[in-house]
Amino acid sequence: MKQEVIEVLKNIVGEDWVLTSLDQTQGYLYDETEALIRPKAAEDCVVVKPGTPEEIAQILKYANEVLVPVVPRGGGTGLCGAAIPTQTSIILSDERLNKILEIDEENLMVTCESGVTLAALLEKLHDYDNLFFPVHPGDEGAHIGGMAVENAGGAGAVKHGIMRNQIKGLQVVLPTGEIVNLGGKLIKNNTGLDLLHLMIGSEGILGIVTKVTLKLYPEPKHKGTLLVSFDNRKDAIAVVPKILQQGITPLAIEYMERDIALESAAHIGEKWPAEEGSVDVMIILSEDKEEELYEKSEVIVDLCENHNAVYTLIAETAKEQRSILAIRSNVYTAVVHDAADALDMAVPVGSIPDFMNDIFALADKYGARTPAVGHAGDGNIHNFIMRENGEIPSYYEALKEAMYKTAVKYGGTITAEHGVGKTRMANLNLQLSEKEIELIKGIKKAFDPNGILNPGTVVTI
Amino acid sequence: MKQEVIEVLKNIVGEDWVLTSLDQTQGYLYDETEALIRPKAAEDCVVVKPGTPEEIAQILKYANEVLVPVVPRGGGTGLCGAAIPTQTSIILSDERLNKILEIDEENLMVTCESGVTLAALLEKLHDYDNLFFPVHPGDEGAHIGGMAVENAGGAGAVKHGIMRNQIKGLQVVLPTGEIVNLGGKLIKNNTGLDLLHLMIGSEGILGIVTKVTLKLYPEPKHKGTLLVSFDNRKDAIAVVPKILQQGITPLAIEYMERDIALESAAHIGEKWPAEEGSVDVMIILSEDKEEELYEKSEVIVDLCENHNAVYTLIAETAKEQRSILAIRSNVYTAVVHDAADALDMAVPVGSIPDFMNDIFALADKYGARTPAVGHAGDGNIHNFIMRENGEIPSYYEALKEAMYKTAVKYGGTITAEHGVGKTRMANLNLQLSEKEIELIKGIKKAFDPNGILNPGTVVTI
Repeated sequence: MKQEVIEVLKNIVGEDWVLTSLDQTQGYLYDETEALIRPKAAEDCVVVKPGTPEEIAQILKYANEVLVPVVPRGGGTGLCGAAIPTQTSIILSDERLNKILEIDEENLMVTCESGVTLAALLEKLHDYDNLFFPVHPGDEGAHIGGMAVENAGGAGAVKHGIMRNQIKGLQVVLPTGEIVNLGGKLIKNNTGLDLLHLMIGSEGILGIVTKVTLKLYPEPKHKGTLLVSFDNRKDAIAVVPKILQQGITPLAIEYMERDIALESAAHIGEKWPAEEGSVDVMIILSEDKEEELYEKSEVIVDLCENHNAVYTLIAETAKEQRSILAIRSNVYTAVVHDAADALDMAVPVGSIPDFMNDIFALADKYGARTPAVGHAGDGNIHNFIMRENGEIPSYYEALKEAMYKTAVKYGGTITAEHGVGKTRMANLNLQLSEKEIELIKGIKKAFDPNGILNPGTVVTI
Repeated sequence: MKQEVIEVLKNIVGEDWVLTSLDQTQGYLYDETEALIRPKAAEDCVVVKPGTPEEIAQILKYANEVLVPVVPRGGGTGLCGAAIPTQTSIILSDERLNKILEIDEENLMVTCESGVTLAALLEKLHDYDNLFFPVHPGDEGAHIGGMAVENAGGAGAVKHGIMRNQIKGLQVVLPTGEIVNLGGKLIKNNTGLDLLHLMIGSEGILGIVTKVTLKLYPEPKHKGTLLVSFDNRKDAIAVVPKILQQGITPLAIEYMERDIALESAAHIGEKWPAEEGSVDVMIILSEDKEEELYEKSEVIVDLCENHNAVYTLIAETAKEQRSILAIRSNVYTAVVHDAADALDMAVPVGSIPDFMNDIFALADKYGARTPAVGHAGDGNIHNFIMRENGEIPSYYEALKEAMYKTAVKYGGTITAEHGVGKTRMANLNLQLSEKEIELIKGIKKAFDPNGILNPGTVVTI
């Protein structure tokens, strides 16, 4: 990076907030994308840590003058390489924008700076009797701003939806340096094209989010976790849409194969409660009344027992629930060292059984080991393509493409919650038409005429 | 309109589906926008009624060649002039795209062509035991496609949200003639910039919607309507956020001033049940269990009685409920002949009491009669500015601008559900910054480089 750029950045944010040596910057070069498929980061980068939106605006204006790319960075927990700089760049970290600005109990909303971690937000909400935020992408180190631009999902989407459903307002520094405030604490707002919703899920290519206003919910008074085990994948998957068709809306319905459940349990020193069966479905219920919780639990247990369940457990104590959920949450960490790629497809919930049968058949055809875990209740399953002898298997690209085509065949998506970033760009045309990609490029150009913000992400202009 | 254009249109859709004489076309020139403030329609228009998306594509491609504007038209129930052609145009009516294509009970979704009316959709759902669609903008002649591009709201938004929350997929013919399918029956989908959400609320300037996939809900088993009356506006408005702060989420909380309730009741030959009080709040509850309905009704009645309610009624019979709702639904029709403008602002629900106090003070300052009715539970109140001697009052522009500025001061919006269209464009800069309007223009240009689709709506490029 040119010394001149570094000097200007130091002038804008102060010397303490600019990192230049590789020792200091290397923790900022990658996100959580699987090591074998992530792009190689450019090492000639400078990390800058602005303290205000105005400083970010100055940096972006300067970057436009000298045409140096800027790569925004939140918690670095992304899984599509959106935060990896692939050319000499200014890495702009929002870690100093870490204040929770307002808990608005009257409107049930929270406003925080983008660099607040999910962990910090959840901790803050513990101070209140009755406030709940439902989106949980697994890693609580995620920054709220990153969760907004990646439109994070996670397990709670069945009942409460994803980030898009919670975000009411965003403050954004545009690529050309203007600061705009989009949306507000509103249920209805129809003032022209909706820039707020365009910014959600934009993966840092349209602007740098600096402030987020989110919906909150009353804390559900009663929570319960059901664990139901089956002898095979087919039976386990088939029960998922049937639960929803009862008119029951759990917080989450998670699917997990036993071998990775055991791996995860071992990884964190817990014990998986079921011995029978080889595939598990977890149903998390949240209800305001205890009797509702019991009633719905019974309906689900009866349904599962009529559909070949071999083991059912109603986890009643908080400890039991925590243990099961911790095992589920740690699957990724436990398995990722041996995974080539963790796919992130989704299909309509009713199509999950057929889709997964096709996916299993594809894995058999390629002789691949593809364990699966995921948010079956919202149609989103993560199929791992495992390494062979520590390497990307030779069939990886062909199998991945075949799986993506299968998802699209069922009206699904190649990326449900991880995003396109830099790792899924090459396959975007399996889902989107040429014209849609052209429109995305056109929008990108309208926001960022010089293409300085996060180049090589989603589309190349 | 040039004869040559008419001939080409006849070749595309067939002679029967092109209307050219003013006799035939004049029913297509206006929407439901208040007569005194709507723009004057250009009369030199031709109406074309394509039968397929492919015919629409051909029309749009041709319009780009000869640079003739195309104005899309649904049910003509809009309230912002978006469907009024202000220059010589091809008016493209979707009335022949009127098929309900699929009721998907497994995924709880319906797919229909854009020209299906809300009435037809609701009637179809009656054939099913347990399916419910919550968005109701008042006029059931609205087309589903129009409701999508206007992001329609209505009374049910408190519990279920607006069109944006229900739309899962759209088929759209782009201004340049390509047909794209956006979204799908998915809960999660993160493939790049979200064109689906950009199209929702785009008021017919980015494309012509031809097919819509919507979420459905299980029919709530028990519905109840509470009517609570107060002696003054202040007490009535103050109770609204308090109801929501109980953790109760009704289907709707409606606010209505007595004089217009009586006018509406007379208009449709019904009797308003309350004699005490001068301002009413209606709370519509929908619950799965009867005891929940009674329990919540009691909590609300107690709360209102502790906050100066002078009359409360729990409407238990379906007939009683229908009568009250019919009176509420017909306010607009009953009052509009004497209204200059029906404003459509919204503010955060918690700010409604302060906002409305400011609005009442402004009306006093201008000596204006400004009755109010609206969806108080979602922050959206329609303030009428009434005519004086049948004309637009001299203070109209000044009062409207002052009211808009008041909404913006509370973090609100100048248009919550009606849209910007052609009538709110001049005031858009009270809410959006110059840069935001520039971005909207940039997006419009990326979609419609020749500006042929619905020119003069939302922005002028």
